[in-house]
Amino acid sequence: MSDDHAATIAAVLAGDRRGIARAITRVENDPVAAAAIIGGVHARSGGALLVGVTGSPGVGKSSLVDRMTAAWRTRGRQVAVLAVDPSSPFTGGAVLGDRVRMQNHAGDAGVFVRSMATRGELGGLSRATGDAALVLDAAGFEVVVIETVGVGQAEVEISRAADVTVVVTMPGTGDGVQAIKAGVMEIADLFVVNKADLAGAGRAATEIEAALSLAELPPESWRPPVLQTTATRYEGVADVLDTIDRFRDHGGTDAVGRRRARIAARLRQLVADRAVRRVTTSGRFAQAVERVLDRSVDLYTAGDELLENGPGESGPSVA
Amino acid sequence: MSDDHAATIAAVLAGDRRGIARAITRVENDPVAAAAIIGGVHARSGGALLVGVTGSPGVGKSSLVDRMTAAWRTRGRQVAVLAVDPSSPFTGGAVLGDRVRMQNHAGDAGVFVRSMATRGELGGLSRATGDAALVLDAAGFEVVVIETVGVGQAEVEISRAADVTVVVTMPGTGDGVQAIKAGVMEIADLFVVNKADLAGAGRAATEIEAALSLAELPPESWRPPVLQTTATRYEGVADVLDTIDRFRDHGGTDAVGRRRARIAARLRQLVADRAVRRVTTSGRFAQAVERVLDRSVDLYTAGDELLENGPGESGPSVA
Repeated sequence: MSDDHAATIAAVLAGDRRGIARAITRVENDPVAAAAIIGGVHARSGGALLVGVTGSPGVGKSSLVDRMTAAWRTRGRQVAVLAVDPSSPFTGGAVLGDRVRMQNHAGDAGVFVRSMATRGELGGLSRATGDAALVLDAAGFEVVVIETVGVGQAEVEISRAADVTVVVTMPGTGDGVQAIKAGVMEIADLFVVNKADLAGAGRAATEIEAALSLAELPPESWRPPVLQTTATRYEGVADVLDTIDRFRDHGGTDAVGRRRARIAARLRQLVADRAVRRVTTSGRFAQAVERVLDRSVDLYTAGDELLENGPGESGPSVA
Repeated sequence: MSDDHAATIAAVLAGDRRGIARAITRVENDPVAAAAIIGGVHARSGGALLVGVTGSPGVGKSSLVDRMTAAWRTRGRQVAVLAVDPSSPFTGGAVLGDRVRMQNHAGDAGVFVRSMATRGELGGLSRATGDAALVLDAAGFEVVVIETVGVGQAEVEISRAADVTVVVTMPGTGDGVQAIKAGVMEIADLFVVNKADLAGAGRAATEIEAALSLAELPPESWRPPVLQTTATRYEGVADVLDTIDRFRDHGGTDAVGRRRARIAARLRQLVADRAVRRVTTSGRFAQAVERVLDRSVDLYTAGDELLENGPGESGPSVA
């Protein structure tokens, strides 16, 4: 390991903000650096509660997370926020976004905010987010919020990365039903109807509850509560925090099962990434693509041929 | 290869509907069967135009695709539709959905409709969809529509799978801006503002055009047109088809580049899937998960250890 990584690791473990920021930049940009940094901090991780917050654009997730952060601070907890936008390949707005998000917590060493933007690689963002969350965990943050925009596969991934997943919606847009359509029903441990001062909040909550009541659950299992908040006025925010704690207490062995599933998913991804890197750097990859393109071989046969020879002649170490 | 796969392959190449349906069920459920079937049909594929259609729930994608299908039929083209819902793990509704979708084309052998639902495996759906599209291509359908719900990583994958990607939106929901926020701007070859009989259609189109005008494109490159349709009344649908043809004609060498990128992406996925299957069936995988869980080893080191021994002791063939 380079001395530089060692210094970064020491800074993370000391809770140094600039060291944490540097560590996250490195794990975000470079899987090799990520391996070194995660290797150095993992033993100190595991204490944080990872809270996933997801929902469609415009429902007020950022405001809700901001007020939840403030409420956790009044309870003495240190809070880090990772704001993830899986669908946007833009990174330019991220730094500005972080500043806006931080302005309510300026000068508070107990709050850390960071935007994560995709680099276009499928799976790369979830790897980087998982590693960044682990860095923040090891740095001593008791709550790490992973906030994502949208509904889809990315959110299912996030629900795997979090100990508890909060799905946020708002009244009046048919979003209650939409949440069900989009399959987020299955990943929510807790629903929040935000902007509850708007007309139709009660109906939105009732719709979600009605959909939930159709699910057949064992008697002892957790039933996702449907809360209402007006985050901009702090209304209902304390209740969200209490419900998250209640979920954590309820979790018991199930929480370990989730972490086990999360680790298994990350390990599978890691194995996949490395196998792909070996094969694509082998030179024969481009040839295989051309042969499939001109239809002299089918995809599966080409894949088999790459794998048969691939791992044997790995060439220079690809870490 | 089993005789049964051989019979299925022959049926696909003969354009037999039941054979096609059976082939898709097999490639959907079983990567091993997929390898056999794709191996048998790939040489006859490559003639179809793959059209991706994506957009948020409720914008009228299904109606638009239905009317586009009808319009292609009047132009004498055979059309297959794969309706993909990446976010829903439910499969129960799929068959019913296919029946509803087919009712306007009942008895028309030139139309084939099929729903694809995720089996929960990340990447599995895009593999199955790509294989199903190839089966339909080899069966002689000249247009294969891949319709997906939502915005996010899944749609980026679909844009890779398609020769041309149509992003559908509607007026009045701020969805024009939302489309931009969600990063679908980059994947669209063509925007459609559907439900153009509603107020605000012109404004939605203008918003998208304004956002597009910010992109710096080389002078000769394709600028995604923004069309308006009222699909339920067939208004604007012919224009969508004409624009798709125009895009295909414009494509030239770029179209080959897209197919090359698509093959490379599929090959990477294939290599990843097989490497993961080898490792996870090796027995040491569960041990590695436990060691990461109790923090005696970090993720990256565990992944390295799995890969070092994994491919050598593959045990029973995992195809």
